[in-house]
Amino acid sequence: MAIATRSVTEACESAKAAAHALATADTGTKNRALGRLAELLEARVDEVLDANAADLADERAAGLSEALRDRLALDSKRVREMAAGVRAIAELPDPIGEELERRTLESGLDLRKVRVPLGVIAVIYEARPNVTVDCAALCLKSGNAIVLRGSSYAERSNAALAALVREAVVETGLPEGSVELLSGDRSELEQLATADGLVELVIPRGGEGLKQALKSVATVPVLYAAGGNCHVYVHSDADLEMARRIAYNAKVDRPGVCNAAETLLVNADVANEFLPGVLADLAAAGVELVGDERVRGAAGAVAMGEASDADWDTEYHGLKMAVGVLDSLPEAIEHVNRHTTGHTEAIVTGSEDVAAEFTEAVDAAVVFVNASTRFTDGFVFGMGAEIGNSTQKLHARGPIGLRELTTTKYIVHGDGQVRG
Amino acid sequence: MAIATRSVTEACESAKAAAHALATADTGTKNRALGRLAELLEARVDEVLDANAADLADERAAGLSEALRDRLALDSKRVREMAAGVRAIAELPDPIGEELERRTLESGLDLRKVRVPLGVIAVIYEARPNVTVDCAALCLKSGNAIVLRGSSYAERSNAALAALVREAVVETGLPEGSVELLSGDRSELEQLATADGLVELVIPRGGEGLKQALKSVATVPVLYAAGGNCHVYVHSDADLEMARRIAYNAKVDRPGVCNAAETLLVNADVANEFLPGVLADLAAAGVELVGDERVRGAAGAVAMGEASDADWDTEYHGLKMAVGVLDSLPEAIEHVNRHTTGHTEAIVTGSEDVAAEFTEAVDAAVVFVNASTRFTDGFVFGMGAEIGNSTQKLHARGPIGLRELTTTKYIVHGDGQVRG
Repeated sequence: MAIATRSVTEACESAKAAAHALATADTGTKNRALGRLAELLEARVDEVLDANAADLADERAAGLSEALRDRLALDSKRVREMAAGVRAIAELPDPIGEELERRTLESGLDLRKVRVPLGVIAVIYEARPNVTVDCAALCLKSGNAIVLRGSSYAERSNAALAALVREAVVETGLPEGSVELLSGDRSELEQLATADGLVELVIPRGGEGLKQALKSVATVPVLYAAGGNCHVYVHSDADLEMARRIAYNAKVDRPGVCNAAETLLVNADVANEFLPGVLADLAAAGVELVGDERVRGAAGAVAMGEASDADWDTEYHGLKMAVGVLDSLPEAIEHVNRHTTGHTEAIVTGSEDVAAEFTEAVDAAVVFVNASTRFTDGFVFGMGAEIGNSTQKLHARGPIGLRELTTTKYIVHGDGQVRG
Repeated sequence: MAIATRSVTEACESAKAAAHALATADTGTKNRALGRLAELLEARVDEVLDANAADLADERAAGLSEALRDRLALDSKRVREMAAGVRAIAELPDPIGEELERRTLESGLDLRKVRVPLGVIAVIYEARPNVTVDCAALCLKSGNAIVLRGSSYAERSNAALAALVREAVVETGLPEGSVELLSGDRSELEQLATADGLVELVIPRGGEGLKQALKSVATVPVLYAAGGNCHVYVHSDADLEMARRIAYNAKVDRPGVCNAAETLLVNADVANEFLPGVLADLAAAGVELVGDERVRGAAGAVAMGEASDADWDTEYHGLKMAVGVLDSLPEAIEHVNRHTTGHTEAIVTGSEDVAAEFTEAVDAAVVFVNASTRFTDGFVFGMGAEIGNSTQKLHARGPIGLRELTTTKYIVHGDGQVRG
């Protein structure tokens, strides 16, 4: 069941042929394949860990930062978590065949709009082997074939995991080509992104470099996720204790991820009352703080740097936060809309009207009222899992789950209708 | 209320500023603007017809084909039809604010997924002045600002119509920038298609040349509509009288449009019985027929040419049809999927199982059973109107109506929830 080296076109053609069978596979068959995959992950954990150990021992891996090595490293607990994730995806409702609209047209035609799979989805990702399994499972459940293009750092781990997925798929009677794995040189990215007629969608899971590389060449649709320059705005009527907890959590809980907050905005009416406490909390957690003049005036004993223009547009990916004071709700909305990446924004307010004005006017995929930005996540949102996150407005906005991996088809039944 | 010459950037910025106000405009206000537009079209028909006469009298228009002059020409009946179309759009349900999902998350968060406008939509179109009004009305109703980029052949007609739209919008208290009109040189296309951050979506309504020009430069999302290489497949168990009516209608009713059929496929079991009659009908209507050897053998007295390989991929835009005989349903499905542009396909069959197999396996936006391909149309589908048609799989597939001009936003209310 080893995966031979093959060209991008061969892999995509194999996936496309498989996609036809997957599109009409029933829910039970797809779920059996997922169940078998979970079993294989548990039964063959040693194979996976051996491959992973070889990736980690490779001289190339020596150059990775500790954070990247941690993402690459697997242990039996992580493999069991993958299996649990696959079982959770099996439990989710099948989006395929869902009837979105139905009506009888004037001519008597019976029109239905139903969900169907996209076809072949390509996922390009960094050295995180669990992505191999998560994305393959989401695509299988949504009736799509997947072409995985992993990092060469994780080559052996990905191959071991993809081999288990293919084994589970074939044992269930689905085509092996449902899951294809590539890990060649960088030219593969361009080939995938221009495979019109074979690949329906490219999902990049990686940094700005990957996105820019795709933007300049892609002719196949790509779902991009901008980073998250997320704001927490504390209005004058906020419960300030609640605001303090939310601002702290949004920044400190997991500062490296895209739903962490980068900027704290505070209404001038409560700045003097609110800021000293929250800034002290943040500083105590090791957060480097920069602010405008008014913030620094209200900061009390907390040490603060001066915010530059660039700070308001920076996703720090770490323990740093920009803090600003604004005179009104419209000013806060304007600041957020000027600097947002469209990922996640939050307001803390005691007023439903203020909340409504903010949520209507702020142009982002997710807007929270009185909650931390950290909740933006497909699993938390009840979508079971996510294959990525979209900050685009077209097709999918926010976490990309099973439904977002589908398209629709109008199926219209008549009894001989002609037009005109 | 004349529209001064302005740059693409000025027009897009004006539209973007207007889009913020439009996004929160209530349904009543939007409908009043549409109602006022319909009144103005009726009251000021002479202004519109004068402008149109000047376009038609322009020396450039002398070079247009009769079909293109007919599309450019307005009369009072056509203007009244525009007004009626605008009133019909006012009658449609407002898609904005529609709640698509709502659930309480484990943490107690109240999650809602609601429809919101995209922002600024650019429509690039040929010399059909009615598109100015149709598209502006659809965008207004869906809370989007629009930048119209019409043909220079229709410059005066478009300006007169856009001025009426702007007058109606301003009288209703909405921003004038809700509707912007450009008609400069071809460099505007590239500027619109790369106006990231200002324009959210480009909809080209034109031929292959326009689409290719956009494909090579666009960084803003574009909704492309491929042409319609539509097939009618007559299965062995079809009601052959019904099949004859459907094949005839699909080809002859309006052969220049994209939902007209280009290819007729017939199951071998009924070829000898079915073909002579339908081919005689088509020939009598002036349809040039080309076919494979088996078709020509069954054609009887009807004169037929030989189909080349290219014929199976050609959208004739006129009275010509390719005819083929196939041995089985899977062969028919394979032929259709190899040659379809993904627009519309049809089968004539007496069996529900055969219909299900065909509709599941054929990869197109719309699949008809026992009805003519000619019914693919936003108005016919009960969407009120359409701004175009998408043969893409992402975002919108099929007619593009009000809902397809929206995106979504998650609005999540909490009472202080933090994560972790």
